[in-house]
Formats: sequence, structure tokens, C-alpha cells
Amino acid sequence: MAPHREGSDASVEAMVAQVEKHPISSILIIIAMQTEALPVVNKFQLIENPHSSCPKGVPWIHYHGAYKDIIINLVWPGKDLTFGVDSVGTISASLVTYASIQALQPDLIINAGTAGGFKEKGAAIGDVFLVSHVAFHDRRIPIPVFDLYGVGLRQTYSTPNLLKALNLKTGKLSTGDSLDMSPHDEASIAANDATVKDMEGAAVAYVAELLKVPAIFVKAVTDIVDGEKPTAEEFLQNLAAVTATLEEVVTQVIDFISGKCLPEL
Amino acid sequence: MAPHREGSDASVEAMVAQVEKHPISSILIIIAMQTEALPVVNKFQLIENPHSSCPKGVPWIHYHGAYKDIIINLVWPGKDLTFGVDSVGTISASLVTYASIQALQPDLIINAGTAGGFKEKGAAIGDVFLVSHVAFHDRRIPIPVFDLYGVGLRQTYSTPNLLKALNLKTGKLSTGDSLDMSPHDEASIAANDATVKDMEGAAVAYVAELLKVPAIFVKAVTDIVDGEKPTAEEFLQNLAAVTATLEEVVTQVIDFISGKCLPEL
Repeated sequence: MAPHREGSDASVEAMVAQVEKHPISSILIIIAMQTEALPVVNKFQLIENPHSSCPKGVPWIHYHGAYKDIIINLVWPGKDLTFGVDSVGTISASLVTYASIQALQPDLIINAGTAGGFKEKGAAIGDVFLVSHVAFHDRRIPIPVFDLYGVGLRQTYSTPNLLKALNLKTGKLSTGDSLDMSPHDEASIAANDATVKDMEGAAVAYVAELLKVPAIFVKAVTDIVDGEKPTAEEFLQNLAAVTATLEEVVTQVIDFISGKCLPEL
Repeated sequence: MAPHREGSDASVEAMVAQVEKHPISSILIIIAMQTEALPVVNKFQLIENPHSSCPKGVPWIHYHGAYKDIIINLVWPGKDLTFGVDSVGTISASLVTYASIQALQPDLIINAGTAGGFKEKGAAIGDVFLVSHVAFHDRRIPIPVFDLYGVGLRQTYSTPNLLKALNLKTGKLSTGDSLDMSPHDEASIAANDATVKDMEGAAVAYVAELLKVPAIFVKAVTDIVDGEKPTAEEFLQNLAAVTATLEEVVTQVIDFISGKCLPEL
């Protein structure tokens, strides 16, 4: 077995080497929910691409457009064909990230979305975090080394200048396929030292690393996990307002990226 | 929102309509672990395809070969590039299923592997199950309809003649990304009425349905989840012997399939 290592420095170096010499020309925004995606689609006047290279029959939606010198692709996994709800969670996120990288070869991925926040770690409703690390909290495999694979701790692509310029909060993100939080998940999230919790981030990071594309994670807090209110209720209550904030920050991120090479971020 | 429906009758009909008129000529076997895959690879003298259409840099391994009148493709997600262990779980399984269907256009998918069994539901070490339904037990989303999407109950492709001919046990499979079982998972597994528990099946089923390929699930029991021994210990102890049994049953399945059309299964 190969020795494990934290983060993905070697991969990140390879990524940067490939594209460091030219300004970022193409980005891929992965967003799990329609409510989160539409403000960004409208802001940049993106149009749906009916001829996208998605396989026939999948519900995935590809929007695209140009803004300044950047081609913006936004992919949303669409509504589940059986149940009619947004295709949230790690499996859909992995699939659309994989298929979109293959089809679009972006310079940079931005996974934007809502998240639960931990007030104990400094999160408040409406905060937007630029994530430093991702990990999973619901992949417990108590066999040596498999345990580390399950957690899948990864450092995100480092963008210190972006973080400083936008004055965003930063923290670690923990990903799992449940909206609620079981005691087992809670312990894993604490072990992951997470400030925010979502349902897609670590999956997008896994696929981005597999295909050697740098990825950043912009997560806006809709609900306080360690607060008084039930998560689902608080999430739905704040979803619209927080997605407006998310759109504003995504716009700032794209404005900052424009004209810059990856190492300048 | 579209009304939800249990199973996937419409999709299954579409699948069958496409291929019912000719004998099955190409199958795709998805196996998560090397220890599970190699006995099948050796039995059918499959060879690794170094020119597979997998993207550069991914650890996925594609074996192929011919047996009687069937082209056999076997895809194993390989060793994780960071941690060096088998890339188990739903994300890798989803990705290789997606990429392999796209590249190989199989008539039928067989997801074969080991599983935990519930003795209360009639499972014993070494039993091989042909799965009737799959569902997830670690995707809890307590919002109406999202809850059903999370569980993702699906009927597998129905093969009554195969089941009868091979005299296999049948039961429902519940999938999650943990090897252990938390109390929350246990409640969900009970709600799923599961006899066996694995880490990939429902993910393979999701992708197969998305791309309209019929899929069957052959799961061999390595450990008794509701027994006395710790899961990880029992799993590792029985892995080699049970994978030999799994290979025998996969061989019987392929022998039965040979020369038949899908509706004859």
C-alpha cells in the first residue's frame, strides 16, 4: 500500500504547472440546487445549452456564457427523474463534476452552495466561507488506511489573494449525504474540525483531484447546526436570502479571477 | 414536482425494448475490491486493457475478454491514488459505472461483491443473494419527497428464471458508505427491509437507471451484521473464501445468460 499523505500538493503542483502561464479562460461552476443556481444564471445571463454533451436522458442542465474574458459554465444536476427534487448529494455531484470536466476541460472549478454552519466555530447565518479543507463525515471504514480513505481529507486549491481581497471567512468543510446530523456524524464532523457542513463539497473535490483540476469551494450558511432551530426548517427559511448572498460572492470571485493566472489567486 | 413512483418500471421497459430482440452480447461487471475481482478475472482469463477509455491518471482498471458468445468487461475502480486502498464506496462505484456504460454500452450490468448479511432475515456466511431491491441507508433528508429521493428505493432488473435456475437466495440490499452500522443506519436498514448491506449497490443501480441499462446484483455474505463478531474482523476473516464462492456464482450467472435475450432471464 502506498503511504498516505494529507492534502494533494503533488496534484496541485501538476494542475498549476499546466495552466499557470495563461490567464484563466474557462471556469466550471457546480451547484447542486436550482434555487442556488438560478441567481448566478440570471446575474451572468447564462443560457441553457440544449446541445450539451450530457448523455441522453440525464436530467443535468448545462448553462454557459461569457463574462469579461472568461467562459462561464454552470452545471446543475437537475431534478431527479423519479422523485422530481433537486439531485443533491455526493453521487450526483461526482457524476456531473466528472462529466463536465471531461466535456469542458475547465481551468478552475467553483463548487458554490449552501451549507450548515457551527456557531461554536464562528459561523453565522448568511456567512460565506471560502473552504480550506474538505472531508467526509459519513464514510466510516474501521480498517487501517481504509479509515483515512473514507474520511478523504483534502486541502482545497489555495487562493490566499482571493481570500484576502474578498475578506471572506475561511474554515474546513465536512460533507455527508444527510441533511440531519446523527451522533456518529457529529463526532466525525468534530474530528474533521469542520466549521461548515454540506452534501457535495468533498465529492466534487475528490473528482477534481482525480482529474487534476484545481477546485475552490464557496459555501453560504443557511442554518446553524449546533443552534436551537431544526435544520430543515431553518434551511428552508433562509434559503432564498442566503442564495442571493451566495450569488453576490460568486460574482465577486469571478470578478477577482478575471484576467488572472491561477498562481495569482 | 413530478409524482414519485417506486421502482423504475418505465425505464426497465425502455431497456428491455432496446435489447430484447437479440441475445445478450456484452456485459459489464462492476466489482469494488481487487480481492473480489481477481478470481473472476482469472476464471475468464480476462486481460487488462491498457488502452481503455478511462481518463488519463484515474486508477480504474478495465479487464476484458470473450466467453462463449459474450464479451465480458470487468471494471474495478482500482487503488486510491492517495491512500493506496481499494476505492470502495458509492462515489467510485458511480463514476466507474457511468464511465464504463458510456464507453462500452453493455447490454447488462452485473454488480458483484461481498456484503454484510442479517441473520434475522435469513442470511448466513457464504450465502449468495440475487438482489430484488436496492436502497440507501445513509442519505437522510427530512424534507418531504427529498426523503424518498435520499432512500432511493429501486427495483432491480427482474430475472426470475436466473433466480430459479441457480437456486439463489433473494432479498433486499441496503447501501451506505460505512462498513460499520450506526444506530441511525440500523433504523434505516430496517426500514429498507434489507437482508444484505453493502457499500456500492444502490449507487450502481442509480447510474444504471440514469443511463437505462438493466442491472443485477450478486452479493456474497462475508459477515453477519446482527451477529456477535465485530464486522471488520469477520469481513477480513471470510473475504478470501467468500470471494471464491462469489466467482463460482458469477460464472454460473454468465453461463446462464449465454445465448439468452434479456426477457429470458
